[in-house]
Amino acid sequence: MLKQILPFAHELIQAAIEPGDLVIDATCGNGNDTVILSQTVGSDGKVLAFDVQEQAIEATSRRLSQYELTNVDLILDGHQEVAQYIPEVWKHKLAGAIFNLGYLPRSDKQVITKPVTTIQAIDTIAAHLKYGGIIVCVVYYGHPGGEEEKQALLDHLTTFDQDYFRVLQYGFINQKNNPPFILAIEKKSQRSEVTP
Amino acid sequence: MLKQILPFAHELIQAAIEPGDLVIDATCGNGNDTVILSQTVGSDGKVLAFDVQEQAIEATSRRLSQYELTNVDLILDGHQEVAQYIPEVWKHKLAGAIFNLGYLPRSDKQVITKPVTTIQAIDTIAAHLKYGGIIVCVVYYGHPGGEEEKQALLDHLTTFDQDYFRVLQYGFINQKNNPPFILAIEKKSQRSEVTP
Repeated sequence: MLKQILPFAHELIQAAIEPGDLVIDATCGNGNDTVILSQTVGSDGKVLAFDVQEQAIEATSRRLSQYELTNVDLILDGHQEVAQYIPEVWKHKLAGAIFNLGYLPRSDKQVITKPVTTIQAIDTIAAHLKYGGIIVCVVYYGHPGGEEEKQALLDHLTTFDQDYFRVLQYGFINQKNNPPFILAIEKKSQRSEVTP
Repeated sequence: MLKQILPFAHELIQAAIEPGDLVIDATCGNGNDTVILSQTVGSDGKVLAFDVQEQAIEATSRRLSQYELTNVDLILDGHQEVAQYIPEVWKHKLAGAIFNLGYLPRSDKQVITKPVTTIQAIDTIAAHLKYGGIIVCVVYYGHPGGEEEKQALLDHLTTFDQDYFRVLQYGFINQKNNPPFILAIEKKSQRSEVTP
């Protein structure tokens, strides 16, 4: 069966990271992805989990406690500030990042991710990512401002140099109500091929 | 690593078909896909392989002989005529189809797949497909007429009823020279969910 959006997003990020890696949850929200990332990188790895809403940081903190996970730095700040939060010793271990673009479910729909800061964060993470690493964006765009962010992101990512990155779009095109789709950015290992 | 177009196309079709099924190679070309399909459905299954060019039918015939595969009906006709070639006893066993849209590599580039007949063939196969079955199209569109076929196909497939079909688009969006992408149409099993 064709994989749904969220399972495929998790499959992509989990295929790229391994125990001991550094990984970023750029929009921790209710902490679902944070738990998955934390478990995947294990006690020798580290997760940086960002959100601009205190309620998201608290919800994620509770989820992590439930699972007794202690390898996550919770950061109440915009993900565009990511560079200053990556500890020097972890810099060469950044293997992946995940973004859920849109707004936090069951919260103030006025607080949404924005094109400029989303793109800043992606560019910064892409620059720091190790070879073979991946940034997975789940793009929700049915809310006011969503279409604009989606278009800005597509316009920006199509310009990524194909010698260094591969940008995949994965989505269902016959569904109503603007269902989310995936944009995944892989930093090519130096031995990668360009052929389809 | 993000899967390239051709390996992902093969993965999708192979996940949907099993020994004993009927499967259609709508554009057999040099026979690469035909061999894979033939091996997957096995001696209890059947492949209908179409092409409008004698040179493609001959090339495929040679490939099949090399592998001693005998479960393929080679059909020198347009794939839009598919309905008349499905034997009655096989009708409820149609599990998949693959299209390589564009022109036959290393041949006359004037002979290309065309929007009207491609869509006719897809609609006919979609109607006959069993639940959970899949049609995988690898869309090459860099040649004259390619952009038109791509657009007609996208326009048509976005209208497929989401209660019965899921239409996936999978492709790399930062590559030069119009690389191929995938459109996959899955006939939902009656217990499928619509949620992402």
